[in-house]
Amino acid sequence: MTLTHDLQRITAFLTELPHARALSMRVESFGDSSAALSMPYDARFIGDPATGVIHGGAVSALMDTTSAGAVMAHPERPLSTATIDLRIDYMRSATPGQRITARAECHHLTRHVAFVRATAYDADETRPVATATATFTVERAP
Amino acid sequence: MTLTHDLQRITAFLTELPHARALSMRVESFGDSSAALSMPYDARFIGDPATGVIHGGAVSALMDTTSAGAVMAHPERPLSTATIDLRIDYMRSATPGQRITARAECHHLTRHVAFVRATAYDADETRPVATATATFTVERAP
Amino acid sequence: MTLTHDLQRITAFLTELPHARALSMRVESFGDSSAALSMPYDARFIGDPATGVIHGGAVSALMDTTSAGAVMAHPERPLSTATIDLRIDYMRSATPGQRITARAECHHLTRHVAFVRATAYDADETRPVATATATFTVERAP
Amino acid sequence: MTLTHDLQRITAFLTELPHARALSMRVESFGDSSAALSMPYDARFIGDPATGVIHGGAVSALMDTTSAGAVMAHPERPLSTATIDLRIDYMRSATPGQRITARAECHHLTRHVAFVRATAYDADETRPVATATATFTVERAP
Repeated sequence: MTLTHDLQRITAFLTELPHARALSMRVESFGDSSAALSMPYDARFIGDPATGVIHGGAVSALMDTTSAGAVMAHPERPLSTATIDLRIDYMRSATPGQRITARAECHHLTRHVAFVRATAYDADETRPVATATATFTVERAP
Repeated sequence: MTLTHDLQRITAFLTELPHARALSMRVESFGDSSAALSMPYDARFIGDPATGVIHGGAVSALMDTTSAGAVMAHPERPLSTATIDLRIDYMRSATPGQRITARAECHHLTRHVAFVRATAYDADETRPVATATATFTVERAP
Repeated sequence: MTLTHDLQRITAFLTELPHARALSMRVESFGDSSAALSMPYDARFIGDPATGVIHGGAVSALMDTTSAGAVMAHPERPLSTATIDLRIDYMRSATPGQRITARAECHHLTRHVAFVRATAYDADETRPVATATATFTVERAP
Repeated sequence: MTLTHDLQRITAFLTELPHARALSMRVESFGDSSAALSMPYDARFIGDPATGVIHGGAVSALMDTTSAGAVMAHPERPLSTATIDLRIDYMRSATPGQRITARAECHHLTRHVAFVRATAYDADETRPVATATATFTVERAP
């Protein structure tokens, strides 16, 4: 089954990424040009000691990795992908203590470039913590 | 002395940031609307196990923090600052094993918004690893 | 009626904008943190003479104006707004001869900053021509 | 002479662009991965009738075209280029009545992607009106 196979592929891929491991990222879903990854609240990633809020850089790493996952989940099955540029908009602080989940969609693919949108949430899925817009290079099978 | 005082202020600020500590960030310079921070190569932040290249998310965290530092280093001395949005362009992979340094400049400040540009290098300072363009909110003294 | 009133307000606002007039922009909808504007195909705005495709700058102007409209359509009724920064991703060329429509949503508003997403289409509404991500300053009533 | 030849090439290129003609763009310099274009103040492009300030969309069109020019001015001489994404930061309003000049530099070129930075000025060249960060696709000779 494609989805299962893909889930194994992306889970293996992520498990091998030291930075994803360092942030304890977990695959929530993968397939059909989309991916969702989450990471637990972790005191080591606090960006504002007064409030305990997670550093934007950790959220950025989660969204970047999730976006790459969405590219790999495209039906045309790219061999590999790399971030060209990534824009993150920070709407509000993630609530301390809550898991953060990012959902990304690869909504367009040209010969060499993939376009991705992503959103990050904490436990309140009605109010995003951040959104991302990114482009990635795409390496295709010959 | 302003610069020394500021360096103490920002060094203390950063030392208190768990995420900056987790990435072992170090202040290289601070003052006059500019800041430079660096972080050592660290196997925990590898983003591509095949090559040992550091994850873009770690570079992004360094540039975000350095950019916030540049805002705090503005002569109008903001009380605090927070990222509104941040765009990173990734030009090439940082060479494994090398320290990464980010230099940021707050080149414009309005009543509520600061504009920042930043560049990240490894040991080869002639070829940037990444550039960033960002806006930050600014909290001013009453 | 609020919506009618708002439509009059934004239509008047746009009719007074020489650049919106120059591009023959028309308000399609306005209200509830959203706006839609369209502009006709016009040979004067061609960006690629070999194909007759409209210049990205004209699409950008349409999306910028539509995004500002979405901010003005927010229920908190800002007095005025101005673009801080705007990112446009160009997915494909608009088909020559077809009207271009942009839809924008102000999905988050803080004290001083509004966050907007927008999408532009030609006659084929299943495949966007471009997407935009932007932040705007917000002037509120005292 | 390369520069002269290139200047002819880009001048011809721009003269053929209806949108560049509509905005009365003029090539100021071209070559060595850089380009500068300017456009006169024109009442048709006013974005704020109360102040006479030019619409951001016209500035965006100028910066987009100038950035494409910088890509074409790269020593590796791309055959053609197209905007992937473009971010513009608006620092201040251009002073009504003054010519606007954009300067762009293609600071990095990979196999398929060009990275460009640009700045726009009015008569006061010490305070930029806007900055741009963009990526472009690159078509190379076979």
